[in-house]
Amino acid sequence: MAKKYVYLFKEGNANMRELLGGKGANLAEMTNLGMPVPQGFTVTTEACTQYYNDGKTINDEIVKQIYDALAITEEVAGKKFGDDENPFLVSVRSGARASMPGMMDTILNLGLTDKSVKGLAKKTNNEKFAYDAYRRFIAMFSDVVMEIPKSEFEAVLDEFKEKKGVKFDRDLDAEDLKGVVERFKAIYKAHKNVEFPQDPREQLMEAVKAVFRSWDNPRAIYYRRMNDIPGDWGTAVNVQSMVFGNMGETSGTGVAFTRNPSTGEKKLYGEYLLNAQGEDVVAGIRTPQPIATLQEAMPSVYQQFVDIATKLEAHYRDMQDMEYTIEEGKLYMLQTRNGKRTAAAALKIAVDLVDEGVLSEEEAVLKVEPKQLDSLLHPNFDADALKKAPVIAKGLPASPGAGAGAIYFTAEAAAEHGKNKEKVILVRKETTPEDIEGMDFSQAILTAFGGMTSHAAVVARGMGRAAVVGCGDLKFDEAANTVTIAGEVYHEGDMISVDGSTGNVYKGLVKTVDASISGDFARLMGWADAARRLRVRTNADTPRDAKKAVEFGAEGIGLCRTEHMFFEASRIAAVREMILADTKEQREKALAKILPMQQGDFEAMYKVLEGRPMTVRYLDPPLHEFVPHLDMTEEIEELAKNLGYTVEEVKQKINALHEANPMMGHRGCRLAVTYPEIAEMQTRAVLQAAINVKKECGYDIVPEIMIPLVGSKKELDFVKNTVDETAKKVFAEQGMTLNYHVGTMIEIPRAAVTADEIAQSAEFFSFGTNDLTQMTFGFSRDDAAKFLGSYYDNKIFESDPFARLDQDGVGKLVQMAAEKGRSTRPDIKLGICGEHGGDPSSIAFCHKVGLNYVSCSPFRVPIARLAAAWAAIEEKKAK
Amino acid sequence: MAKKYVYLFKEGNANMRELLGGKGANLAEMTNLGMPVPQGFTVTTEACTQYYNDGKTINDEIVKQIYDALAITEEVAGKKFGDDENPFLVSVRSGARASMPGMMDTILNLGLTDKSVKGLAKKTNNEKFAYDAYRRFIAMFSDVVMEIPKSEFEAVLDEFKEKKGVKFDRDLDAEDLKGVVERFKAIYKAHKNVEFPQDPREQLMEAVKAVFRSWDNPRAIYYRRMNDIPGDWGTAVNVQSMVFGNMGETSGTGVAFTRNPSTGEKKLYGEYLLNAQGEDVVAGIRTPQPIATLQEAMPSVYQQFVDIATKLEAHYRDMQDMEYTIEEGKLYMLQTRNGKRTAAAALKIAVDLVDEGVLSEEEAVLKVEPKQLDSLLHPNFDADALKKAPVIAKGLPASPGAGAGAIYFTAEAAAEHGKNKEKVILVRKETTPEDIEGMDFSQAILTAFGGMTSHAAVVARGMGRAAVVGCGDLKFDEAANTVTIAGEVYHEGDMISVDGSTGNVYKGLVKTVDASISGDFARLMGWADAARRLRVRTNADTPRDAKKAVEFGAEGIGLCRTEHMFFEASRIAAVREMILADTKEQREKALAKILPMQQGDFEAMYKVLEGRPMTVRYLDPPLHEFVPHLDMTEEIEELAKNLGYTVEEVKQKINALHEANPMMGHRGCRLAVTYPEIAEMQTRAVLQAAINVKKECGYDIVPEIMIPLVGSKKELDFVKNTVDETAKKVFAEQGMTLNYHVGTMIEIPRAAVTADEIAQSAEFFSFGTNDLTQMTFGFSRDDAAKFLGSYYDNKIFESDPFARLDQDGVGKLVQMAAEKGRSTRPDIKLGICGEHGGDPSSIAFCHKVGLNYVSCSPFRVPIARLAAAWAAIEEKKAK
Repeated sequence: MAKKYVYLFKEGNANMRELLGGKGANLAEMTNLGMPVPQGFTVTTEACTQYYNDGKTINDEIVKQIYDALAITEEVAGKKFGDDENPFLVSVRSGARASMPGMMDTILNLGLTDKSVKGLAKKTNNEKFAYDAYRRFIAMFSDVVMEIPKSEFEAVLDEFKEKKGVKFDRDLDAEDLKGVVERFKAIYKAHKNVEFPQDPREQLMEAVKAVFRSWDNPRAIYYRRMNDIPGDWGTAVNVQSMVFGNMGETSGTGVAFTRNPSTGEKKLYGEYLLNAQGEDVVAGIRTPQPIATLQEAMPSVYQQFVDIATKLEAHYRDMQDMEYTIEEGKLYMLQTRNGKRTAAAALKIAVDLVDEGVLSEEEAVLKVEPKQLDSLLHPNFDADALKKAPVIAKGLPASPGAGAGAIYFTAEAAAEHGKNKEKVILVRKETTPEDIEGMDFSQAILTAFGGMTSHAAVVARGMGRAAVVGCGDLKFDEAANTVTIAGEVYHEGDMISVDGSTGNVYKGLVKTVDASISGDFARLMGWADAARRLRVRTNADTPRDAKKAVEFGAEGIGLCRTEHMFFEASRIAAVREMILADTKEQREKALAKILPMQQGDFEAMYKVLEGRPMTVRYLDPPLHEFVPHLDMTEEIEELAKNLGYTVEEVKQKINALHEANPMMGHRGCRLAVTYPEIAEMQTRAVLQAAINVKKECGYDIVPEIMIPLVGSKKELDFVKNTVDETAKKVFAEQGMTLNYHVGTMIEIPRAAVTADEIAQSAEFFSFGTNDLTQMTFGFSRDDAAKFLGSYYDNKIFESDPFARLDQDGVGKLVQMAAEKGRSTRPDIKLGICGEHGGDPSSIAFCHKVGLNYVSCSPFRVPIARLAAAWAAIEEKKAK
Repeated sequence: MAKKYVYLFKEGNANMRELLGGKGANLAEMTNLGMPVPQGFTVTTEACTQYYNDGKTINDEIVKQIYDALAITEEVAGKKFGDDENPFLVSVRSGARASMPGMMDTILNLGLTDKSVKGLAKKTNNEKFAYDAYRRFIAMFSDVVMEIPKSEFEAVLDEFKEKKGVKFDRDLDAEDLKGVVERFKAIYKAHKNVEFPQDPREQLMEAVKAVFRSWDNPRAIYYRRMNDIPGDWGTAVNVQSMVFGNMGETSGTGVAFTRNPSTGEKKLYGEYLLNAQGEDVVAGIRTPQPIATLQEAMPSVYQQFVDIATKLEAHYRDMQDMEYTIEEGKLYMLQTRNGKRTAAAALKIAVDLVDEGVLSEEEAVLKVEPKQLDSLLHPNFDADALKKAPVIAKGLPASPGAGAGAIYFTAEAAAEHGKNKEKVILVRKETTPEDIEGMDFSQAILTAFGGMTSHAAVVARGMGRAAVVGCGDLKFDEAANTVTIAGEVYHEGDMISVDGSTGNVYKGLVKTVDASISGDFARLMGWADAARRLRVRTNADTPRDAKKAVEFGAEGIGLCRTEHMFFEASRIAAVREMILADTKEQREKALAKILPMQQGDFEAMYKVLEGRPMTVRYLDPPLHEFVPHLDMTEEIEELAKNLGYTVEEVKQKINALHEANPMMGHRGCRLAVTYPEIAEMQTRAVLQAAINVKKECGYDIVPEIMIPLVGSKKELDFVKNTVDETAKKVFAEQGMTLNYHVGTMIEIPRAAVTADEIAQSAEFFSFGTNDLTQMTFGFSRDDAAKFLGSYYDNKIFESDPFARLDQDGVGKLVQMAAEKGRSTRPDIKLGICGEHGGDPSSIAFCHKVGLNYVSCSPFRVPIARLAAAWAAIEEKKAK
């Protein structure tokens, strides 16, 4: 038997979402609940996939099934397609598994032809209505199905109105509209070289194909990429008998939510327009009425709607978003779905539904999407203000939140003005570790280069500052100290607004709304914590970040990057002295200066953590990052003076640090292999700090020492030996012993492949998925922007592998390493500390492969807690 | 029962090499063959490993077994350690599985003490002999076991000789030697603060430990790294009763080979010294006699030796290298082993042994080491001349062979002087594609930077030119146009000699010997070809290289790097025009200029190949490699003029090509994704060339198109689609169709991990192990030199992973990809085209994982053929 590609509404149900799409499944469910739904049928998502497989044609079997379903629907309606007495008309709508705004618009009134329009006029006894419907249909079909510019139709309409001296479409009479229809058909013919199709079945097939095609239009592709929707899902098509909300004052159409989607308040919320079709509501010419007023206008219809809404919410156990039409006093339901809502509303509804006894706590957790929390934790733009604000550029949404203020092009200027309570935006080509103070004083950071794991992105997320990076629309003119955006020149002090959640940059100051967290948040997060198995740590390098993260629920630090402590002005001199040393003795002398500073940092961290664990990563970046660029003459001269070298010598030393591919150069544990004294100093700093804080505060501290960039067991053994030997000395000196663990990052493909060997020496693994992604794909995060655009355009990649873990490639290495690691050390502790540790889909993957914890920037900790809970609950559900 | 750590000679045999070491196993074998071997015992390699596991101590069990064996040996000899009547004396020698010259020297006369020396004097009735033996022993023990400088002992000896007014050691009498002994013991005490050990058993234990220690001395480690000997093998220790060749004119000692080790001639070859111990032969004070003269001096001993030699060669079925001592007319065999030989000798001996019916053809193949062939294919330095030449620097032996000539610092100068028949050496910091002509006119290339896969290394190997790279001893002074080597300033025109097989650089002109290939070579290679399963292709980009490779037996081209064709002066203009184009149209215009040139190249290649297959790799390197550096003002001005840009525009465009990590940047198939028109042009060039040559010459050409740097199936599909669409057009235009294959490099870890998916689209895989090694280790071949030194010193790496495939890491990915590839495409063709394709141990790995072919530079083709045969034959043997 042939596969079933078409389902009548009464043949489906809400569980058939994958096959029928969300809209189709819910229309079927409402039908089966006995609700008043205009009948029709759904062409399945599998038909869409088949359409693409067949080279964008609809095969005979599918055509046959559509016509069969059409015949039954006609019979139920008691009408005929193209009939000149009582013509059957349908709407055609797309409906994917997940709601997808990027896709095809609705087509209404399909089935109207020169012949059937007369039937409609006769049947409704309303010629104006019939020709109005016909002209709307021709324009909609031409635009949506045939891609003829809408403006040409609008121009004709304007011409008729002008000629008649009226303002609104509705002021045109039947004769006018007949004239409009003729002109519209002429436009169609001029573009397509054939007459406007007069066979409703041909109209229907073209419309179905247009829906299928719209699955692959650029907006849909972009939306899918942003929302992690696979490209091979396809869309369903819903064909439904038309009902008319524009048949007079006892007709109307509207939308409603069972609860307020902005606040979550439990109160029917929505609006309607009398004597209107859906597009009139959207057009915004007339102002819709609040739904409460329907109670007066049509009390019985209102009561029927309230009953249906209540029943639907109870049935779906969630807030519903409904569309309905009233045709001559009779209510029809056109759609229901779980309503979109703000983060605040999501929290309140979830918590209320638990209190109302509708949902279990775990079910409630699944009602709040982890990513939504961002908008609760960061300032946002006022929604109305945003609508009017002019977008002048777009970049990567690197760190969520909103920032508005005066732009400055150097971190120094940003810091200076920020200190004076001015709201500032730091705008740079890219940021470097030296810019940290300026970033901290900024409302937002905007850069021309870099990706989702660039310095600006990582640091901004850590600070909770909004950031848009890789914004290629910025053109810097260094001589003039200006930046040109969208053709306009901006000077320091000019105002812009930056939306780190969308990547948009706006001209001028857009009003912002502060972050706010309600009591519902704490309750829901409590339920999430009870449900999750993954622990959540944070990536933090300063006591302030650590404190913030602990407030957000972090259970420890998964990544403390020791080098970030090296950049402070007071320390960089000693760090540079170490780097430029000629001998081990000189290096040790410089390290001796750094030791007390680093030890002090660790002491402060351990105090903030109050006994929570901290993984300290040893020095990782290539050393050239710490020295001035060759063109920074002043700094070099000072350096030479301080260190007793000639300027030429300093330049030569800096030159010698140059690498062809620094990302794959002398960094990570390679530094500890060539200069074991650095690892010695860092071991002293960690252990002495732990001992001091233990003595002072009594916390039971078990230092976790993490060796970065390990590629082989012997390499780890070498550094571990330095750590162990130093520890022995420290313990002897201090007359006190501590437990400590030595583990490694897994961030080099070879480490993943040989993880069974490495685990013999490593007490824990932390997956450094930023570097692992770079090495596994063989592309550098700093350079990939040049070609990733083409990869998205050509559908080679659907998401940014630096933001969302590539489970098919990088993920396989993670899984392999986890399995191999456990094969030789069954109790090995496994975590992730790459940027993916804060990404919900990546966290679900970490749960699946059995990691012990994820570690992410402080402001992502709540998201990670919630995502971890989702993963655990969904796993339970799947069992 | 305790493990057996000590074997008497009569308990072992030749097959116990792993346990007893080569020397010990052969002493045992000779003992069992009934040959006159001074008896003794072997402490096993496992005892050595145990010594290291026990923290460098010899445990009680091993000590006990040594003393037990000692007791038996004493009994057999009828002598006692330390006896003052008839003292037992032994030699102690190291003996690893493989011969290792870096290890400990022999200790003779162990067992002599103040007491037993008197016994020896009494027993031999020769006091001078006894004290001479004692003083030799003290010096040897102090030097070799206790690391007391030898020079102090030599000074004392000189002092005695001077005082007495004599020239030779042998002119000192017994009384003198007693005085020498006292002085030697005083030196010992001054250094060690204890008396020279008077207990022979203590002497023995110290000597055994010294042998074990010597396994890990820097020379031994270096030798192992050079020769791929694992560090965990350990060495055995042989303790053997002393016999004395210095007991008068009926005593003597010597070495001999059963055939000539230089030429392979079948004739006993060797020499001896009467009245001498081994060290006298080495010292070179007296000139040894040819062994033939022994026939006159001691006819029966000579005949006995000839019989033994003949028996040993027949027994071992290979040319033997033997040591022997004659003690008062009685012959003792001290060692036999398969003799080292030159490549020419190896060939002749192998072929002769087949002709003599001793070896099968496959056994003969295993008698010639693949790496040895290098010295047959390249010029070499005259061995005698080399001994006297002063080494002034050392770098990486990047391309074998010898070159001597005048140095020049630019490719232009080298080419200019080379064209005038001057022998020149190109000396540069590093080479670039523009230097190719100059390299071609040079005898050898010497660079300061770069590793085994740097441009200079790869290109030199391809050309068969000698090259030493990464020679850090070179200090360039660009202003003076000189280079300083070992403190001496060299100008252009000064003479040096470069040995690409060892990495040594010599001052002045060292005499070279041309490459020569005998008929034996062809016979042996024929046997190798019959035995091997792996096919051997070559990496070649020019008809000349391809022709050379075919002469060397290449069965096709495994890697034709199309970009190498882009650098010629006549083409680079069009290439630059393409790269700097702003629009697709401009780019296509430039590509149209390149197309006929590239097509012409392919036509020439196909003609040379006469129907053999050729894999063409599409454009791979980052585009910035093709444009001038920013400081090359003249070239930029010319470029601007030619292309109608301003100089500033050209500089901006060049700047825009800059990448932070070009190795992981916009290159490989990423170029074909962003600029599909490049792949279109290359497809046209390949297919049109194939069609033209097929028409002209009738060869059945099936083009193989290889897409580089693929990381995912979709990426390959995208480029493959461009190829297929272009092919359709070309076939339509030409009215002719060709079969062609599209495959991919596997050189990105992600490609290996997802090889099952990629193989659905790829008809072949070629493992690009250079890049795969870079990405898998996460280090760049251009930067790794900075830290690899420390990795060798600390025994983290034992060999250069760019020269020898890292089987534990990179190899696992290769194996995984091979298995995954075959899982979805069982008949997929698998090859390797990285530099490892010419490395014997890597070739063995390729055989093991079932690749179809290896591809290597032309001069490595014979090596690869032989290595492939070795792998096949050894696999058969293991079954």
